[in-house]
Amino acid sequence: MKIIKGGVTAAKGFKASGIYAGIKKKRKDMALVYSIVPAVGAGVFTTNIVKAAPVKWDMNLLKQNKAIQAVVLNSGVANACTGELGDINNEKMAKAVAHVLSIPVSSVLTASTGVIGKQLPIEVIEAGSKKLVNELSDTKESGLLAAEAIMTTDTISKECAVTFFLGEKKVTVGGMSKGSGMIHPNMATMLGVVTTDVSISKEMLQAVVSSGVIDTFNMISVDRDTSTNDSLMVMANGLAENEIITEKNEAYYLFYAAFHYVTETLAKMMAGDGEGATKLLEVSVLNAATKEQAITLSKSIITSNLVKTAVFGNDANWGRILCAMGYAGVEFDPDKVDLFIESSLGKLQLVENGMATDYSEELATKILSHKEVTAIADMKLGTAFAKAWGCDLTYDYVKINADYRS
Amino acid sequence: MKIIKGGVTAAKGFKASGIYAGIKKKRKDMALVYSIVPAVGAGVFTTNIVKAAPVKWDMNLLKQNKAIQAVVLNSGVANACTGELGDINNEKMAKAVAHVLSIPVSSVLTASTGVIGKQLPIEVIEAGSKKLVNELSDTKESGLLAAEAIMTTDTISKECAVTFFLGEKKVTVGGMSKGSGMIHPNMATMLGVVTTDVSISKEMLQAVVSSGVIDTFNMISVDRDTSTNDSLMVMANGLAENEIITEKNEAYYLFYAAFHYVTETLAKMMAGDGEGATKLLEVSVLNAATKEQAITLSKSIITSNLVKTAVFGNDANWGRILCAMGYAGVEFDPDKVDLFIESSLGKLQLVENGMATDYSEELATKILSHKEVTAIADMKLGTAFAKAWGCDLTYDYVKINADYRS
Repeated sequence: MKIIKGGVTAAKGFKASGIYAGIKKKRKDMALVYSIVPAVGAGVFTTNIVKAAPVKWDMNLLKQNKAIQAVVLNSGVANACTGELGDINNEKMAKAVAHVLSIPVSSVLTASTGVIGKQLPIEVIEAGSKKLVNELSDTKESGLLAAEAIMTTDTISKECAVTFFLGEKKVTVGGMSKGSGMIHPNMATMLGVVTTDVSISKEMLQAVVSSGVIDTFNMISVDRDTSTNDSLMVMANGLAENEIITEKNEAYYLFYAAFHYVTETLAKMMAGDGEGATKLLEVSVLNAATKEQAITLSKSIITSNLVKTAVFGNDANWGRILCAMGYAGVEFDPDKVDLFIESSLGKLQLVENGMATDYSEELATKILSHKEVTAIADMKLGTAFAKAWGCDLTYDYVKINADYRS
Repeated sequence: MKIIKGGVTAAKGFKASGIYAGIKKKRKDMALVYSIVPAVGAGVFTTNIVKAAPVKWDMNLLKQNKAIQAVVLNSGVANACTGELGDINNEKMAKAVAHVLSIPVSSVLTASTGVIGKQLPIEVIEAGSKKLVNELSDTKESGLLAAEAIMTTDTISKECAVTFFLGEKKVTVGGMSKGSGMIHPNMATMLGVVTTDVSISKEMLQAVVSSGVIDTFNMISVDRDTSTNDSLMVMANGLAENEIITEKNEAYYLFYAAFHYVTETLAKMMAGDGEGATKLLEVSVLNAATKEQAITLSKSIITSNLVKTAVFGNDANWGRILCAMGYAGVEFDPDKVDLFIESSLGKLQLVENGMATDYSEELATKILSHKEVTAIADMKLGTAFAKAWGCDLTYDYVKINADYRS
């Protein structure tokens, strides 16, 4: 597997565009990702009962096994809690793109992100759709423009791409995502689009996507708030011309690894770019009794406001880590737990068998001062493990969210 | 029922003291509550698997049906994650008090709050215990000193007392509590002590306490972090000389109402004094299908960082309320929900049947600018309801917790 530059336009036959349509005040606000041939589609979506109009639209299309050829996305307005008019406007957005591209409306997935409760400015969207189609291109630059156009409070655009070989055939997987706040994906995620030229059956593609997010997008949290709009949409157009993947063979697992790398990278970029964050925090739970236990414990640590503020303050307040494990709702023996912290500035054991070691607070503070920090909990119960990613809780998180709408 | 001044010394036969022993740098750090006769004891404790030494001690004593005569409390050090030495030190604290008071060590409950992972400075504690006994008094002032001595990041001391009559006999219920951060009680709470002179059986007292916290202490949250030390301890010494309550008769419910008032008042004081808080936020879920649904929804709203920051910013960002309800994990119809905000500056309907009303943002901001704000969700599903209390998430919460140990 080789990591390459680029995002949604890296794979063969994919074009993208990102423009300013006029939904937001100044910044780019619409994006389009298009496959020159019909593609197999798959996706995972928010588990929130309150589902945005585009989420309902996409889940319905994918259930019907329609071929997918485009994803149109807007930022600024989430089109959630908008009633029937929201559904009508969402369909109008899909239709506008389908019309200009001369493809069936049932091949167009939609995604929206932004303020909840506002209606889409549908005339702006329709005019924007034409412009989006006009500007489609398969260059890296166009992929980047699309990634930029879906940003809200994000401070960096998020792209990733890799290539690998299936026999003689080079396969490419590329993706983009956005997400900075209201991030606590649960069987789904913020907005993400992954494109690939692999040839794969719909069933196998959905299997890769559904199991892939468990270790990646589902393991990040900025603020424990699962959004109404979380969507990860994947298109596989088959232009790599590999032998079509229809079972869990070697090719399946090679593709799985590539997909996993792209989504994990995007997930970590989102966690590290969490609203107001100064640091990416990785939590690694080792030697747990079960995978489920490892996941639950790592997510409980990564979501604790008290752990997050301590990390912001470079304070090795390990009691808060053990406390967050204790209320996670799973059984374990606190008197067995070892805790470590690690960054490129060093590694230190803070706790052995549930009690403080004689560690140096000075060294602990130094390790925590790096912008990527890992906390490791060794449960000494079994062999299962999990990793979760989050960020610190800072003054700027409060600032961004105290007046998000103004 | 009459609300009176005072706290743990309000009821007949209770004395208290609060002193500076030397555990913390400057502020008072030890408290004692004492009944002049053996009392019936009851309590609820943290559900966190990581339990502090005093929590294990108290749960064990109460299980053995021992008569209880004193509660000794310290702040500064939580005596959690301290291993066997922590248990030994905790017993030494109970013994020191029992010795000077000439009462059995099995009649002394203990409680600690402060930094996790540090050992109690046991010589300081033992010297402090003598001083505590020497300064015991039944005055209001002594009750206040005790309430002050258990404060950590609290900015105000928390006391409440009421009286009511059972036939000719006046019964008093008084209490104190502390708690400002790491507050998300779950079948238990922070540190709280309630004293009463009611005559009641142990079984009935525990019934009142266990069911009482469901609507009060268990309905507050500052940061979703359930502490290792949460404890509510209750002593009933019978000196009111009412006919002993041994069944759920009228006297039981009168006592329940008084106990409920005291604990709800203390709970709201804790939520409003949440770390860094500028506001008390009450969430009221009405006409839910079941009590459980109402509780789950109200707690999901009160714990959302995004709702809390919006409240700090006086921003009526109702989409975040509906979003937090949507990910709470219970079924409901979002298209039926009505949302209101209310304070002493007015009441306003923001949402009708899941969609925005044509409300005035200006008036909404004005209503939210008050220091006590209520959000109301009408589910239109049934008749169940619940109230939860929390606070806004502010710069000061981050500040307090980024360097709590330094």
